[in-house]
Amino acid sequence: MSGRNQHPSLAAWFSTPNFAEAEIVQQAGYDAVVLDIEHGSFDLAALERYIPFLRLLGLTVIAKVLAPERGPIQQALDFGADAVAIPHVENEKHARYITQMGKFPTLGDRSFAGGRTCGYGPTDQSWYERQNRRTAVYPMIEDAGAFNDVSAIAALDTVDGVFVGPSDLSLRRNRGAYSADADDFTDIEAIAKACASASKPWIMPAWTHAEKQLAYRLDAGTIILTMEHEALRSGFTNSIDEMRSIEGV
Amino acid sequence: MSGRNQHPSLAAWFSTPNFAEAEIVQQAGYDAVVLDIEHGSFDLAALERYIPFLRLLGLTVIAKVLAPERGPIQQALDFGADAVAIPHVENEKHARYITQMGKFPTLGDRSFAGGRTCGYGPTDQSWYERQNRRTAVYPMIEDAGAFNDVSAIAALDTVDGVFVGPSDLSLRRNRGAYSADADDFTDIEAIAKACASASKPWIMPAWTHAEKQLAYRLDAGTIILTMEHEALRSGFTNSIDEMRSIEGV
Amino acid sequence: MSGRNQHPSLAAWFSTPNFAEAEIVQQAGYDAVVLDIEHGSFDLAALERYIPFLRLLGLTVIAKVLAPERGPIQQALDFGADAVAIPHVENEKHARYITQMGKFPTLGDRSFAGGRTCGYGPTDQSWYERQNRRTAVYPMIEDAGAFNDVSAIAALDTVDGVFVGPSDLSLRRNRGAYSADADDFTDIEAIAKACASASKPWIMPAWTHAEKQLAYRLDAGTIILTMEHEALRSGFTNSIDEMRSIEGV
Amino acid sequence: MSGRNQHPSLAAWFSTPNFAEAEIVQQAGYDAVVLDIEHGSFDLAALERYIPFLRLLGLTVIAKVLAPERGPIQQALDFGADAVAIPHVENEKHARYITQMGKFPTLGDRSFAGGRTCGYGPTDQSWYERQNRRTAVYPMIEDAGAFNDVSAIAALDTVDGVFVGPSDLSLRRNRGAYSADADDFTDIEAIAKACASASKPWIMPAWTHAEKQLAYRLDAGTIILTMEHEALRSGFTNSIDEMRSIEGV
Amino acid sequence: MSGRNQHPSLAAWFSTPNFAEAEIVQQAGYDAVVLDIEHGSFDLAALERYIPFLRLLGLTVIAKVLAPERGPIQQALDFGADAVAIPHVENEKHARYITQMGKFPTLGDRSFAGGRTCGYGPTDQSWYERQNRRTAVYPMIEDAGAFNDVSAIAALDTVDGVFVGPSDLSLRRNRGAYSADADDFTDIEAIAKACASASKPWIMPAWTHAEKQLAYRLDAGTIILTMEHEALRSGFTNSIDEMRSIEGV
Amino acid sequence: MSGRNQHPSLAAWFSTPNFAEAEIVQQAGYDAVVLDIEHGSFDLAALERYIPFLRLLGLTVIAKVLAPERGPIQQALDFGADAVAIPHVENEKHARYITQMGKFPTLGDRSFAGGRTCGYGPTDQSWYERQNRRTAVYPMIEDAGAFNDVSAIAALDTVDGVFVGPSDLSLRRNRGAYSADADDFTDIEAIAKACASASKPWIMPAWTHAEKQLAYRLDAGTIILTMEHEALRSGFTNSIDEMRSIEGV
Repeated sequence: MSGRNQHPSLAAWFSTPNFAEAEIVQQAGYDAVVLDIEHGSFDLAALERYIPFLRLLGLTVIAKVLAPERGPIQQALDFGADAVAIPHVENEKHARYITQMGKFPTLGDRSFAGGRTCGYGPTDQSWYERQNRRTAVYPMIEDAGAFNDVSAIAALDTVDGVFVGPSDLSLRRNRGAYSADADDFTDIEAIAKACASASKPWIMPAWTHAEKQLAYRLDAGTIILTMEHEALRSGFTNSIDEMRSIEGV
Repeated sequence: MSGRNQHPSLAAWFSTPNFAEAEIVQQAGYDAVVLDIEHGSFDLAALERYIPFLRLLGLTVIAKVLAPERGPIQQALDFGADAVAIPHVENEKHARYITQMGKFPTLGDRSFAGGRTCGYGPTDQSWYERQNRRTAVYPMIEDAGAFNDVSAIAALDTVDGVFVGPSDLSLRRNRGAYSADADDFTDIEAIAKACASASKPWIMPAWTHAEKQLAYRLDAGTIILTMEHEALRSGFTNSIDEMRSIEGV
Repeated sequence: MSGRNQHPSLAAWFSTPNFAEAEIVQQAGYDAVVLDIEHGSFDLAALERYIPFLRLLGLTVIAKVLAPERGPIQQALDFGADAVAIPHVENEKHARYITQMGKFPTLGDRSFAGGRTCGYGPTDQSWYERQNRRTAVYPMIEDAGAFNDVSAIAALDTVDGVFVGPSDLSLRRNRGAYSADADDFTDIEAIAKACASASKPWIMPAWTHAEKQLAYRLDAGTIILTMEHEALRSGFTNSIDEMRSIEGV
Repeated sequence: MSGRNQHPSLAAWFSTPNFAEAEIVQQAGYDAVVLDIEHGSFDLAALERYIPFLRLLGLTVIAKVLAPERGPIQQALDFGADAVAIPHVENEKHARYITQMGKFPTLGDRSFAGGRTCGYGPTDQSWYERQNRRTAVYPMIEDAGAFNDVSAIAALDTVDGVFVGPSDLSLRRNRGAYSADADDFTDIEAIAKACASASKPWIMPAWTHAEKQLAYRLDAGTIILTMEHEALRSGFTNSIDEMRSIEGV
Repeated sequence: MSGRNQHPSLAAWFSTPNFAEAEIVQQAGYDAVVLDIEHGSFDLAALERYIPFLRLLGLTVIAKVLAPERGPIQQALDFGADAVAIPHVENEKHARYITQMGKFPTLGDRSFAGGRTCGYGPTDQSWYERQNRRTAVYPMIEDAGAFNDVSAIAALDTVDGVFVGPSDLSLRRNRGAYSADADDFTDIEAIAKACASASKPWIMPAWTHAEKQLAYRLDAGTIILTMEHEALRSGFTNSIDEMRSIEGV
Repeated sequence: MSGRNQHPSLAAWFSTPNFAEAEIVQQAGYDAVVLDIEHGSFDLAALERYIPFLRLLGLTVIAKVLAPERGPIQQALDFGADAVAIPHVENEKHARYITQMGKFPTLGDRSFAGGRTCGYGPTDQSWYERQNRRTAVYPMIEDAGAFNDVSAIAALDTVDGVFVGPSDLSLRRNRGAYSADADDFTDIEAIAKACASASKPWIMPAWTHAEKQLAYRLDAGTIILTMEHEALRSGFTNSIDEMRSIEGV
């Protein structure tokens, strides 16, 4: 069905720091979670606890941070996230500026914090280099300017891949509400190709069957399969439907 | 399909004070929620916020309290719960003692607290009587002694119905792990009959199709259809199964 | 006493996410609350719980956000706020830039988030339009530059009215500490007139009797009557004064 | 107006761990606060933070604990409370049993915890004796049995005074809803006399003017003047009344 | 130095749910942690998050519960604790009653909760048996009555070992403040022997060198080496001492 | 050992809002605490509680804020902090812009908030002036540009001193990982001299003996002696080392 060489990483999308939910997705076979810090309800103290828990479960933690700003990027990485996804990157220049906040000098401009990431002990130069390699920075492609510059963005040294934001991209590419139609998929394919050229992975939320097929066909490195709210909604809805059939309603 | 005269109240079982989840179950058509305070993670400050939110959504709040003790019963009612389910009632004598904590004198021994339940204003005698009628007390039938005394328990003035605990009941009736088999259902039917004789409702967690059918057939007043953890588990599992079929795994 | 055609909306000013306080102000007859996220102690998880609770109580929620930045504006709206008040807008250019964060394209640049505001289900183009109409964006007029540009700001498509910040405005208009004097009221009247010309409402904190009269006379759309700290202070002070008169102190 | 020799301690009644509220009552001249842990929303972690803060403000902390049980009594004292008020003491025998949980052996049976109360360092025998003297235990007189035994209860070595619960007492003395009438005041006077005989203080919530006068006349050691909810209610109501008079409503 | 055959488990004593502290003790080589829920500030929601985190770090979790009551014992085990230490067990009869709350029928009377401990899925009879074996119940020996009955307590089927509470034991054995003297050690040795006879482990907090030596010599199964407060105190004190030597103070 | 005229203020570095830790450092003799809001886990509601507690303990509170932005600076000062340390100031121009957020007009551009800092009452012009004097603004010198401009930065009216960030400074001055070597100390000495010329204090984290000596010799106004994580690490490590020596490991 695809010429891809390896399984994509399969991710769940979380809106709250629910520990049981993390155990459930890990047991269900997920590889990764996306924390929607941008629109969810993750406070700092909660993140400081949740991120290391997720990592101990063996889940890759992609922190979709609050805003394209220094503070939220650094904190997610300080707390141990494997990757940051940076929303609303506007274009190549903006990407160049903001992605450096996720990499230590000389590559970037991330601020040093002792603690979790260095084992609560001292560091040396090799630690900075290992951190820069271990943690990934994914600018989101959801603005028209970023879409236009996607090849240049994907090529940046401070960029380890890109994260597609289909709903915002459709709005900003003047197609109105995202409907997962042919034009949307053409845009996504263009992003996938830019990443392939840069030999870097791309990440896609793929709620529907068609989106999952597309992501798989286009060799997405990480495919986000469903979100917390939708899992709850479908789970609770299925049970009430079952009961109503018993009631003969 | 049944001779019952009215629809049962359909409930969801919650383990955390998740506000979005409450909105989701209300939109899915649920009538009530059971808060598993006994085994979940509901702290006092969280309950004080969650219970009035659930009631504003139009959901009936059944607080399954921490233990058969005065404190947890009073607090759930102070915070505005519609009902308390009291775990591990041992027999009729114990039921008589502990259920009075949910009713004001002279009917019972609930302690007065101003605030939410009296509109943050003064009270008069009629308020106490209205509270005693508005809020329900449901002893759980999950111990062998309580099962033996179920008719006497259901008949108590301080009891508004009973709540079945099938897993613990099976363990304590020496059938080992609950398997929803014929013997389990015979016990449940006996409880339903005792309630019917006392003209009081009974409540049953009914995870499987067979349990849902039983509860419906035996005119359960409230049927609990699924729980938060199971909704999450099924939602996340279905998505990964879908993806694996695409992958051809 | 005024030629105004309709009652103003009466609001309370909150500094903490206190659920009982919300019930108390609703019962006292308030129409709206201002959440002082800028200077109060509202964390994300608290806001995600408090905003929908306030709305279920029938209170209009005006979120005075942390700063004139994309993140705080989006989050308040994602959590269901009826309006955002944006502090420290510097001038018309700044207003044009920052108020677009509260409106979806093509009108503005708000980022899409599924969940509460779309009923945890899918959206279509009409939803974006309805959101843009349902939620209001109020730049604050508290900087000298914004005061000078108030007519242009009020006229912006992305602006639904303005929110006066008298203390900061007095400081920045070189009158020093705000004293609710004639010069302060002249400034406020100028803001009211700019809004009247733009046929848009304006909002004013009116702690004193004179301020309440001014706001009423000038047809303020929302008048903020008192704040949490002051309600507590006056309530506790009155009781101790009463006691001291009994003591003959 | 009274022959009393010293000013009573004036207290505020709190339902939440609000730090600003504590500063406000301290500045208003209050001497003490009652934390209504029994019916309010004070979790353990919040109490651990709030109690030492109140004490640093110079406020005496009276913790009205969750229930007449070992755990809640010990925790309030471990966190540094000056006194515990124990609800629902049933009679002298019950008082004898439960009040010992607030005193170390050999006087009582309080469990030792290192930490705050011993300055995070070691202890010696004199520390136990000083703790027993520094911290007060106040059984509540709100059950008919406790009322009957009030003299014996006040005389116990493990009792430092009593705390009147007028609403529950009225219900349990078969007068129905408390109305601060002559019979209620007769009961309160009997409690005051029992304490005078034992040379121990008594504590009374005195919301109305008549109750404040009574408490003062009967030499109450601590008079609780108003509660958080009522302070908020009166503060917010006064402001809306003022506005309505301006509106001419 | 001892004839013991195996290394004791080395434990740290925690008073707060600090995630970084857990990582630090794990990296320092500790095997276990004791959560002082009885005197610390562990709320339910915090425990539900902290216990599984500690276990993923490879640390054995001994939850010293709030009180000798059903609720706190069950919750700690529901959240995944490896063991519960039950304070203030009064004697063999009390031990027999309360320790059964930590074991499922037919061995004991623990209440069933789905969720974490059964992998969020269904259970069968073998699961109950495995849980009873996997989780340990340690009554505390800190009351005089429990000390007298220690051999009988250690022999109970529902008891997996005992946990010494030296400070309370000294007070209740009429030696006043615990001073780690010869009489204290004689008591501890008696407890150790009772456990050896029952072939069950015992656990001892051993803050001083002499206590550590004693615990090691007497083959304690778990030795608690220091506590959070003391670690902080010594760490901060050492640094200020160092600075003062530089200052020449 | 130094020609300095007064003792430096001795500070502890905190990563969490731990109330017991605050009491421990105060008792150990510390004068001040640095709250690492930039990299720690301090949410708004926690800060609103912690800062006034620290001040009541007599500790000077230096809030190292989240980012060089208006919001975090204002909030720390609104909650009562004595000083803000502003990370990642890039150069003199940036310092001039961002430090004004910590000073009210006409000196700077801090936004007014009623409440704690003005005693929950009204303010007059003198209050603004007193606040500007009472609260200090310390830009951090940790970027190469700020280092180059340190004399100009130290001379700004809105700057009350500077705070050295040695690890980031070493990275950004192209020396790689900070090693407290001669080049690092040369940089620090240059900063100290710039402050001496401007007659303003400077602040230095001084973990090692050599750093403490340097800071003392160069008349640092505040010397930060150790951090929470290191205090825990050394405390827990020392105890396990002691035990291993007993074990003969």
